[in-house]
Amino acid sequence: MHPRTTRGAASIVPPPPWHYSGDVLTLEYRTEPANVAALLPAGVDLAPEDPGAVALIWADWQSCSDSGEELLDPVRSQYKECFVVVRCARAGTTYSRCVFIWVDKDFALARGWYQGYPKKIGAMWMTRPVTVGTAGPRLEAGGVIGATLAANDRRLAEARFTISGPSQAGGFVNALPMLHSRWMPSIDPDAPPALDELVTMSSTNVDLGPVVTGEADVRLFDAPGEELATLEPLETIAGYWRQVGATFTGGERLI
Amino acid sequence: MHPRTTRGAASIVPPPPWHYSGDVLTLEYRTEPANVAALLPAGVDLAPEDPGAVALIWADWQSCSDSGEELLDPVRSQYKECFVVVRCARAGTTYSRCVFIWVDKDFALARGWYQGYPKKIGAMWMTRPVTVGTAGPRLEAGGVIGATLAANDRRLAEARFTISGPSQAGGFVNALPMLHSRWMPSIDPDAPPALDELVTMSSTNVDLGPVVTGEADVRLFDAPGEELATLEPLETIAGYWRQVGATFTGGERLI
Amino acid sequence: MHPRTTRGAASIVPPPPWHYSGDVLTLEYRTEPANVAALLPAGVDLAPEDPGAVALIWADWQSCSDSGEELLDPVRSQYKECFVVVRCARAGTTYSRCVFIWVDKDFALARGWYQGYPKKIGAMWMTRPVTVGTAGPRLEAGGVIGATLAANDRRLAEARFTISGPSQAGGFVNALPMLHSRWMPSIDPDAPPALDELVTMSSTNVDLGPVVTGEADVRLFDAPGEELATLEPLETIAGYWRQVGATFTGGERLI
Amino acid sequence: MHPRTTRGAASIVPPPPWHYSGDVLTLEYRTEPANVAALLPAGVDLAPEDPGAVALIWADWQSCSDSGEELLDPVRSQYKECFVVVRCARAGTTYSRCVFIWVDKDFALARGWYQGYPKKIGAMWMTRPVTVGTAGPRLEAGGVIGATLAANDRRLAEARFTISGPSQAGGFVNALPMLHSRWMPSIDPDAPPALDELVTMSSTNVDLGPVVTGEADVRLFDAPGEELATLEPLETIAGYWRQVGATFTGGERLI
Repeated sequence: MHPRTTRGAASIVPPPPWHYSGDVLTLEYRTEPANVAALLPAGVDLAPEDPGAVALIWADWQSCSDSGEELLDPVRSQYKECFVVVRCARAGTTYSRCVFIWVDKDFALARGWYQGYPKKIGAMWMTRPVTVGTAGPRLEAGGVIGATLAANDRRLAEARFTISGPSQAGGFVNALPMLHSRWMPSIDPDAPPALDELVTMSSTNVDLGPVVTGEADVRLFDAPGEELATLEPLETIAGYWRQVGATFTGGERLI
Repeated sequence: MHPRTTRGAASIVPPPPWHYSGDVLTLEYRTEPANVAALLPAGVDLAPEDPGAVALIWADWQSCSDSGEELLDPVRSQYKECFVVVRCARAGTTYSRCVFIWVDKDFALARGWYQGYPKKIGAMWMTRPVTVGTAGPRLEAGGVIGATLAANDRRLAEARFTISGPSQAGGFVNALPMLHSRWMPSIDPDAPPALDELVTMSSTNVDLGPVVTGEADVRLFDAPGEELATLEPLETIAGYWRQVGATFTGGERLI
Repeated sequence: MHPRTTRGAASIVPPPPWHYSGDVLTLEYRTEPANVAALLPAGVDLAPEDPGAVALIWADWQSCSDSGEELLDPVRSQYKECFVVVRCARAGTTYSRCVFIWVDKDFALARGWYQGYPKKIGAMWMTRPVTVGTAGPRLEAGGVIGATLAANDRRLAEARFTISGPSQAGGFVNALPMLHSRWMPSIDPDAPPALDELVTMSSTNVDLGPVVTGEADVRLFDAPGEELATLEPLETIAGYWRQVGATFTGGERLI
Repeated sequence: MHPRTTRGAASIVPPPPWHYSGDVLTLEYRTEPANVAALLPAGVDLAPEDPGAVALIWADWQSCSDSGEELLDPVRSQYKECFVVVRCARAGTTYSRCVFIWVDKDFALARGWYQGYPKKIGAMWMTRPVTVGTAGPRLEAGGVIGATLAANDRRLAEARFTISGPSQAGGFVNALPMLHSRWMPSIDPDAPPALDELVTMSSTNVDLGPVVTGEADVRLFDAPGEELATLEPLETIAGYWRQVGATFTGGERLI
């Protein structure tokens, strides 16, 4: 990706595969299906079942390219993100789709634009479970994890996850192959888009840690230039916390 | 641009026109022409005259869309950038071209990717001239302006500009229509690029303040993931500081 | 100041005098006097006239020590702040007093603690007037300046200043010698404070630019760990914008 | 601490006790003892044995007051720090002493100034060990952890820790009661200090996780306004990584 040079060392992100290890908090709830529909592109429909289901996800990642060199310069490896996943349907298949996402590093933003994640820069925080001392919850019943999202100096979301116990499942909204749009307007604002693709992708080498589940409490706040708060929670489903490892090797263009 | 919704309020940046007013420090010097050539895409050649000329530019901008609403929420309006411009030739025309650029806001990064500026996130600082007190230079002979660039917690550039006096000219390297690449790899890493355009653009409504000129001193530092330091200064030309207003309304695709 | 070494080069801030040049936006309004009284230390009373007057001030500073070296490494020279000044009385004299203040650099925080300004770290933005282009107001009737304050990813204040025209005066709330508390609890939480002083100070070498005045609109937002919103605006007085230069050389201990 | 109000809710940090849980990387090496002596206050001597021993420590903390409310708003709970500990002797007792320290939150800076840690603001990164996926080391032989420190957009330290295996010990330099200076100059620059104390303190409720040890590689870089690089490594001792829980309840004034 940019900037491109003969030597190839300056790119905002090295080429895939990209490897990820991190903590993932998934809070699932239901909103009005019409709120989800307003975020889907033409030709993509609501999921046939539970179409208003939303997953609000915080993740604290360490990531690297195949060389792994970023891991030893962790400012280039670690990033946090908060994102919203819904489900949708196209040509008889149900997909997961990320409709909003904020990250706190430029290399993560660039990878997202490549993958069709509509990334912006934000500020994310998530309570870490602890194994020593008292400054944090244990990963056991009664432990509480807080999470916040801000952009442009405004809080956009606050959430709490109260652990009830172990779980086999880790949520269903973000569990399908992704259906993403890659899009770039034409340099001539009156011309049709220069890039307008639907792509699908899945993670590989998925390595999942144990899950704890519990109660999810989500609050969204309106802000200029944001539409996150349109996905107003009507009914909470559940929350999940787990550690996740995965690799991204590329995707497939559908249109 | 992303994220796209029915309501259209969540985009990382509103559609053009985009208006800019700011302070611009331009430091021109010469490097080995081969260093410039290594940054040009296939089919684009060195400029026929003075092919090793480089402009290292710091700018402190306020910007807005036509509504101007961002101006009253200045976290969404102000940003700083540092960028490198060289000249190049294609099909008998000489252009300016931005080869490296760092900004400190996501909306500016998104606008850059739209325009073909290969933007990353960085941290930029530039001494401000003052009209009261002693904590800053006056815009007059002997005044000194410092400027720094960092990314990923490393200094990439440090510069000083010592004013000698007023000037008619404001530099020649960044004075031509821009020749930029818009580029996005395919979601399948083995496929050809999904977007690979050469575009040109020029500012409109250019409103220039008076220029001061003087001596430029530029130091570049190497860092992992960066190639800025390949543009090693061999000979300084001159520096310029001025206030600039301009509007961007779109560009034209060449290929 | 800390850290102290034999060589003396590591201090978070060099010794005074400290020189300042910057843009200052002052928005004056009235709150309930009881809200002001709740922020005054024992032995300090409300001002005898207009005791509920408040100045909410944004400043964008460039500052340096006598050597001026920070000016050429502007990350160590530039900072922004937002602060609240009230008036108060002690032993027959009326003073100005800063009750809340946020800055965005550690050297500024350290200077504040030395001076008795109760500084925290925050994020401040203020629209800059422009002289070229359309991305900003002119310093003339009808120009509008926005200003925001955030801390811990939450908006604490938003303000607008609509210029009506030039002014001789620049506000009265922050115009008196300061009465500040310097305070450090004992390392033994049960012992009396280790440092508990009332000090007064004034700027020297004050160099004021022309003033524009106009209408002030202030909104304050509550947040955990903050009491700014207790100073609820009941009636606006006026706003002022000017450039200010000044030097701080030290103060005087009263108690 | 500041700002003090009648309601008491605005303080930059709530009163102790303060609870901590976090990851701690300790890299021990030897420098010239004279480099350590240059950082000790009058009346404090080098440690009688191994006086040039230095511990360079990175920590990634979650912390809270007794209420624990900060844990659910983690922007007010989590912070990173990098600090340098040496040993010293006074009145027949050998102590640990922090000579330089950088943190990334204001509440942590304020707690440090209260405790006598000479804190500045910096940017710290430390590789996290992982249990899933490939984007990080396992806490086992061969795992490598990188750590960096920057301030004012300059790298001040880079380190690598290569795990050789489990360990009983966790380092000796930072293992003694702390001997810290609490210091505030007078508001009159010509007067003696307003606060000049030697204090000692120890953590309570110390809850230690298992230790891994290994090889330490430390590089320090000079920068204006910093003296960290004076502690040049001559010989490495060892590195240690462990999780630590502790509580701070206050200290004792010695002088």
